[in-house]
Formats: sequence, structure tokens, C-alpha cells
Amino acid sequence: MNKFPRNHWYAAAWASEIGDAPVGRRILDEPVVLFRGGDGKVAALEDRCPHRLVPLSMGTVVNGALQCGYHGMTFGADGQCVRIPGQERIPPRAVVRNYPIAERYGMAWIWMGEAERADPELLPEIPHFDDPDWGKITDGYQHHPSNYLNIVENLMDPSHTTFVHKQTIGNPAAANAGVQMEKTDDYIVAYKWLPSSPPSPMDMQIKDFGDGKVDRGQFFYFEVPCVSRVDIITMPAGLERTEENFNKGLRNNSYKFLTPETETSTHFFWMHLRNYNVGDDAWSERMRGVFEKTFNEDRDIEMAMQESQNLLGVRQMVGLEIDRAPTIALKMIERLVKDENAAAETVAA
Amino acid sequence: MNKFPRNHWYAAAWASEIGDAPVGRRILDEPVVLFRGGDGKVAALEDRCPHRLVPLSMGTVVNGALQCGYHGMTFGADGQCVRIPGQERIPPRAVVRNYPIAERYGMAWIWMGEAERADPELLPEIPHFDDPDWGKITDGYQHHPSNYLNIVENLMDPSHTTFVHKQTIGNPAAANAGVQMEKTDDYIVAYKWLPSSPPSPMDMQIKDFGDGKVDRGQFFYFEVPCVSRVDIITMPAGLERTEENFNKGLRNNSYKFLTPETETSTHFFWMHLRNYNVGDDAWSERMRGVFEKTFNEDRDIEMAMQESQNLLGVRQMVGLEIDRAPTIALKMIERLVKDENAAAETVAA
Amino acid sequence: MNKFPRNHWYAAAWASEIGDAPVGRRILDEPVVLFRGGDGKVAALEDRCPHRLVPLSMGTVVNGALQCGYHGMTFGADGQCVRIPGQERIPPRAVVRNYPIAERYGMAWIWMGEAERADPELLPEIPHFDDPDWGKITDGYQHHPSNYLNIVENLMDPSHTTFVHKQTIGNPAAANAGVQMEKTDDYIVAYKWLPSSPPSPMDMQIKDFGDGKVDRGQFFYFEVPCVSRVDIITMPAGLERTEENFNKGLRNNSYKFLTPETETSTHFFWMHLRNYNVGDDAWSERMRGVFEKTFNEDRDIEMAMQESQNLLGVRQMVGLEIDRAPTIALKMIERLVKDENAAAETVAA
Repeated sequence: MNKFPRNHWYAAAWASEIGDAPVGRRILDEPVVLFRGGDGKVAALEDRCPHRLVPLSMGTVVNGALQCGYHGMTFGADGQCVRIPGQERIPPRAVVRNYPIAERYGMAWIWMGEAERADPELLPEIPHFDDPDWGKITDGYQHHPSNYLNIVENLMDPSHTTFVHKQTIGNPAAANAGVQMEKTDDYIVAYKWLPSSPPSPMDMQIKDFGDGKVDRGQFFYFEVPCVSRVDIITMPAGLERTEENFNKGLRNNSYKFLTPETETSTHFFWMHLRNYNVGDDAWSERMRGVFEKTFNEDRDIEMAMQESQNLLGVRQMVGLEIDRAPTIALKMIERLVKDENAAAETVAA
Repeated sequence: MNKFPRNHWYAAAWASEIGDAPVGRRILDEPVVLFRGGDGKVAALEDRCPHRLVPLSMGTVVNGALQCGYHGMTFGADGQCVRIPGQERIPPRAVVRNYPIAERYGMAWIWMGEAERADPELLPEIPHFDDPDWGKITDGYQHHPSNYLNIVENLMDPSHTTFVHKQTIGNPAAANAGVQMEKTDDYIVAYKWLPSSPPSPMDMQIKDFGDGKVDRGQFFYFEVPCVSRVDIITMPAGLERTEENFNKGLRNNSYKFLTPETETSTHFFWMHLRNYNVGDDAWSERMRGVFEKTFNEDRDIEMAMQESQNLLGVRQMVGLEIDRAPTIALKMIERLVKDENAAAETVAA
Repeated sequence: MNKFPRNHWYAAAWASEIGDAPVGRRILDEPVVLFRGGDGKVAALEDRCPHRLVPLSMGTVVNGALQCGYHGMTFGADGQCVRIPGQERIPPRAVVRNYPIAERYGMAWIWMGEAERADPELLPEIPHFDDPDWGKITDGYQHHPSNYLNIVENLMDPSHTTFVHKQTIGNPAAANAGVQMEKTDDYIVAYKWLPSSPPSPMDMQIKDFGDGKVDRGQFFYFEVPCVSRVDIITMPAGLERTEENFNKGLRNNSYKFLTPETETSTHFFWMHLRNYNVGDDAWSERMRGVFEKTFNEDRDIEMAMQESQNLLGVRQMVGLEIDRAPTIALKMIERLVKDENAAAETVAA
């Protein structure tokens, strides 16, 4: 019985993390080791030597194969054992599970489900990733000790910004504005549109908005099961809402790729794209600091929720109107898990 | 089924602890948040937002109401929700439990049982608290990782002083002197009276006792379920035992207010009153250090006991004569719990 | 049902560890306290006062008896209570278990089984311990958070050296050489013999081997249930394998005495004897550092194995040819435990 959707691409690691040494990481509650095979491509195997169960991530990469740090049993990128020091015969059970990997956007994506369904066409789209008119911050990572559903809820919920992120991206005016919601076959989006309000302190540092009145939009996209995009727009007040006009103002696209580690913890990968201050590394570093702080604020809340949930065995006691989008996102995930489990039972029967 | 007596006042926090920010504290194994309402008085609520279970102690106090740090749900001092950002309707279940609070002796006392029985007349008496002829040390707090019964035993047992507190309040002569015991309807007291013995090193620093012979008394009072008063008297040898004569010597009143945190840990509040060196702040600070050290010595023993009890599931294997007073104190507490549980069953039936 | 062989001597502590203060140590999952009795000899008792279960190791040694740190109950080296402050009568149950101790090789050895079978003749033999032509390093101790069987396997397995100990005692040439095995009634030994190979970097620092070719031997002895001796020999190439010729080269005898602490942790005592650089204290200290580092490398592997075993409930998934000696050693231990449990059942029936 799966707890997580499996037939999807999950962010496993930034490509920059996988150098000469193997990297061990628990993903969907399974131990995985990532390393570069002979062709330089990232490979993913079960992180456990079948001999004495030592994690292969304690070993070394030798000629593109992964050598166990205990007795030197060596496995190729496909998981087959290619060498056992001291003996000729390779027993048939000397094999570890291999997981499909796709590399894109500076990231190694892993497919934890049925290997034959691992289609790179299904990778998420990040339109401006290679756009020279956009600046970017990549390689963001945090460890959030909370079930990933708590993080999905947080990301689909613009309302918390006012209260959790007072010192960073929050804005008191946001508190009472209603949350709108749209849903397509591909994603859901919750958003707030604040016409003619004062810009945030941070926005004011970047750009002069004349009389100080702006329209502000916060769009919270979620693509199941693991991609969040927050599109924050601050543009001169009164213009029509078009992509073109959006780009006349400040535009920040904050991506999060959530990968369940265990049932109570999540790998929180993040990336940020912007349409201003392109090539300004000092700015990027400053923004990185702001985002780290912002996501740490979320993490503290999510962690406290997880502790309460562990204790009480329930997720919440009262529903609010702002829960609409998070609730739909969770139902979409629930449906994915249910369908996968039903399919698995059919196969088993 | 309660594990602790509930219909009593327990020390929740020093008034000085409750400033602008809310304070979260587990009491009788329940999460409680303390804050100051609009009238400046301390209020106590269940420390858990009914929306997504985030502790309210992670929030902020706004105009005397407690605002959740996640989405801004705001609760009054009575536990009623007074605001939900983004919606007009307050659902009936948007409420958290309120606990009665009484403030006295610089302390916020909490009533964890039936609210209608919370009578300030039942607060403990501390006669010399406002006496200008007595000096005092307040705001003492330690966290003891042990069931509070282990601490009650310790406090009702003068015999351990010789062995546990060699470097502070102990005295080798005390070891073999018998422990006396008296019991009234209000309290029990165990005590040792040591006629004509040498004063302790600490006593000698405070006062010149001529030829160095003194009568020493140690009285260990316990008022169920949570107040301990140790009355330590060092007076010229040979006088009659009266309150008046007691005050001719050195008199130290050490109060402890024990509040169970969980079944294996206790909030240990302490306060000290003395009839000498009144207004001598340097002396107070020095004494504070001695007491902190003394209570830490007890804490180490109590913690080790708790670990053994966790492992073995029993409290002790051999009874000694010195156990008389502690055993009676524990039976008194046991009776309170039993009576409360019986009453709860009657109501439920 | 025992998990460990009990009727054997286990290393309890280095004699140098037992000074004026008692030492508490969990052995075969029982709490033990070691101290020096009136005759200066090491005594071992159950580390738990029968009164309130406080560890006696928190107390003090008074005139060769062990005084509890809480109320001063005092126990002789035989475990009998000799004093209870404040009362005359010693209750019959005021006694703690005594364990036989034998002192040899600078070590206190404990017998955790039936006391009447504790025969010092059964202590391990360490032939060169008092040999003036050999130098030694004693008092080695590490805590390994792994079941002791994992450590036995490691010690009976020369193959891992190449992979785990690259930076210390390892040698790439060793990887593919076959492991030999011999078994007598007293011990089993696994070994590798590498004729005419280059000496290790460390060997070269100690001795000039002419053209650089040497014969190298690694003998891994194991005497049930807890003694490992690794005999590492580097001698001029081509000589006959005799004790006399062994001593013409460099000879290192590394002893480990494994004492289960719990089912998932082990006291790892070690000692080293060598036939060169006798009396060279600087060399000894340097070697001590190398061994500490080497054993830490093993510890990291053993700890990771334990974590996998905890999770999966199995020890391994594929057997290799190099497992022969470790498997026999484990079967020998298993047999000891089985026989002891069968004998215990017979007595009980």
C-alpha cells in the first residue's frame, strides 16, 4: 500500500550535488544512492549492499561503477553486480534496484514507480529557465521535518504570508483580501489580486513605483504531485492582467519541488526566476538569503503541525474558507495514490 | 482516567515570564499557552489552533487577544475566536479551551480541573511573602525530567540531605538522626531536630554562634498536591521550640511548587524567604546560586530514578524506615486522584 | 532466554579506569557498577540500589564499601548491605547481585553467568603481555553502536581491510587474494598470505626491506565468545612460515575484547603488542592514533549495518565466499547460547 504517488518524476538532487562521491538520500521512504556512471550521467540505485546491508553511499565510484565501502562488491549504473573481490562467480541475487533518472533544469529527477512508464515528456515545464532576460537562483535545498501534504497546503495558501512572513515577503494589506481559485486539467491555482495597494518594503527597494501605488498579484500554482510555482507580480496600478503587462512590473517565480523523504519529512528543493536585476550576483545572493529565511519560517510552522498531528492522529479540527485550494490539491494527491493502489491490486489479483 | 489531581491550583508561570509574547508550557500533559489579555491579566488557553493544530504560542498577542502565527485566527482570553482573516463567519467549533488563572505571590496559578470549582481561597498560603522583615528570592525555575512523585518523595525526606548535598546544605551529623513525622488535616510534616550540634559551614558564614553549638531543625512540610515548604532553623542551643525562638536564629523557608509537565517530567518552581540579610541583593544572588546547585543535585538523582523506573516498571524494591513520610504523602496524592476519577465515573454514568 | 553467552569472562574495564570513584557500565544488557573493595581488588555489583533504584555508580566508595548517593545505603564487595543510615535493622532483601571479577593483563574481567563456574583458568591467554622484548599499547577503548556479532564478522574477515582501511593498514594488493581458514577446538583462524608483494606505506616507515619485496601475512584468530587477535606479519620474502621467522620481520598483535553492552552496542576494548620499537613511547602514541582511526572506520560501517538490520530485521541478503570464517564464528557463538539456554531449561524443569 503506497503512501505517496509513485509514477511521477520527483526531484532527487541538484546535478551540482553529484560529483565524484556517491550521495545517499531517502526518497519516498526508500534508501537511494545517486552517483555518476561511466558516461557521466546520474544513476540511482537502492542504497543498500545486498551482502551485509551497508549503504552503498558509504562506498566510492570506481570507473563509473559503485563500489561498496565494506568488501568492494561493485555495481553498475543498472544495478547489476560487476565485481566481487575474491571470487569469480556473481550470484544472481547480487543485484540492487535501479531507478530511472532524467536530468533537466540542473536537476536529477527520479522515477520511483514502474520503470517502463518513466517518460521524460512528463517532466515539469519551467519556461524561463534558459531565458537570457531572466535571472535565476538555483540549487536551493532545505530539509523540512513535516509530511509533504503540510507543505502542499502551505504553498497553496496565500493567506499565511501576512502572518508567517511579516519580515520578508508579507504585507499587512493582504490579510483580508479573498483568495480566488481556478482549476484546469493540468494544475490548480489559488491567487490573490490586490489592486492599488502600497508595494512591500522589498519591492520598493528594487523599483521606483512613482506615487507608490501598485497592483499586486500572488498566484499559487500546484501541479501534482510535487511542483509548486508561486508567481508574484508587482506592476503599475490599473493595467490589464496580461502576460505582457505582468512583465512590465517586477515578476518573481518561485519554484518548489517537494520530494517526500519519509511520512514525516520532506526534501524541499527550490529555485527562483526573476525578470529584473539579471546577472546581478550580489542581488541573487541577497535574495537567496531572503528566501532561505522565508522558507525557514514555513518550516517552523510545518514542523509544529507535524508534531501535533503525530500526537493527535488528525490533521485539523476546524475548516476555514481559505482551505479551499489546499483541500482540492490534497484530494488530487489522494486520488493519485488511490488509483495507483487500485491498479497494483488489479495486477496482484 | 486522570494520572494527576486536577482540581487544584498549580504554579503555571512566574508573572515575570509573561510579557508581550505568549508562553507555551505543557501542564498535566496538556499543551497550555499563557498570555496577557486586554486587562493585563494572565490568561491560559489550550495551546493548539483548532484550524491546523499549530501551537498558539508561536503566534502574537494583538490587543489582548492571541493571534495564530499561521493564518491569523485570533482568540480572546476566554478561548472564543474573535477574528478569522478572510471570512466573516466564525464557526461554532472555532474555540479553544480556557483554563482559570489566579495571580498571587508573583505567580500565575492555573486550575486544570472543573472551572466552576476554581476558588482563589484555595491558593496556598505564604505568610511572610510581603513581610518587610524578610528577604526573598523569587522566580526560581528548573526543569526536572522525573515524575513529580519522585520529587515529592525527595522533598519529604530530610535524610537524603547528608548524602546528596554534601557541598551545599548537607551536614554529616544529620545522617543517623531519626526522622519525626506529624500529620494534620491540612498537611504533613517530616522533620529532624538536632540539638547541640555544630552549625554547617554555610550557617557559620552568616552568623556567629559563639561556642559554635546550635540546635538545628529541618521541617519538611507538604501540602497536597504540589506545595513543599522546607523550614530550616539554626538557633542557639537549648531554647524552647517556639516560633518566636525560631526567629531568634537563622531561618530559611524554601518553597517549591511542583507542576507535572508529563508523566516523566516536572516544572520545579522555587522561592526562598529568609529572616536575615534583608535587602542584601549580593547575598540573594549568592543564595540563588547555592539553591540552583542544590536542586540540580536532586534533579540528577530524580532523573536517574525515572530512568530505572521506566526500565523496570516499579518504583522501589526495598522499603526503609525513612520512607514513612514520603509514603504517606504519596498515598494522599493517590487518594486525590482516585476520588477524582471515581467522581468523574459517577458523572459519566 | 539469554541473547549472549554468559558463562565466560568478558572484559569489564581497564584496571586503570577504576580509581576512587565507582564506574557504571552496562554489560550483557545489565547495569553493573565496578569499584575497589577494602582489599583494593575490583568488585562488581548490580548498579541499582534496591531502595529507590538509583544507580550505585552515582554514589561513593567509603572504606571499601559502596555508599548510595541518595540515602547512604552501603553495600560490601559481596553485595550485602552493611549500613542503612537511620535504622539498625538490615532487611534481608537489602542486597544486590555480585558478579565474580578476575584481574589480569591490566584488565578487570567479569563473569556474567553462574558464579560457581567462574574459573580464572578460563581467562584468555596473551603470551607476550609481560615479554620485555615486546612493546605494548594498552587501555584502548571504543564504544561501537552495533551488535557484537557484526564486530565479530568484521574481525574474522581480512577482506574488508582493502576497502575500509585504505588510509591506514589497507593494501590494494590484498583485495583479490583468497582467504584461508583453519579451525581447532580452541579457536578458528582466517588468514591471507601474500608472498612477494610490496610492503604497505606504514611498514616501510618502520623497517627497510631491501628491494621492497616482502611476504605479508594477516591472521585473524577468534576465541569464543569475545577475544579477537589479529596477527599481522611482514617478513622478508621467501622464508619458511615459522614462529621464529615471523619474529624476524615486523609483527603486530592486535587484541580486541568484545563485551556486549546491549543488543545494539558493544564495548570494544583493544590492546596492541609489537616486536619492534620497544620502549619508544612516541611510536606507541602514533600507533595508538592509527589504531583509533582504523577502528573508527570499522565502527562507522558496523553502525550503518546495525541501522539497516534494525530496519529490515535481517542480517544479510546475499552470501559471499569471504563469509566462510565469519559464518563459522557466528555459528560457534549461536551454539554456546543455545546450549546455555537448553541447560537453563533443564534446571528449571
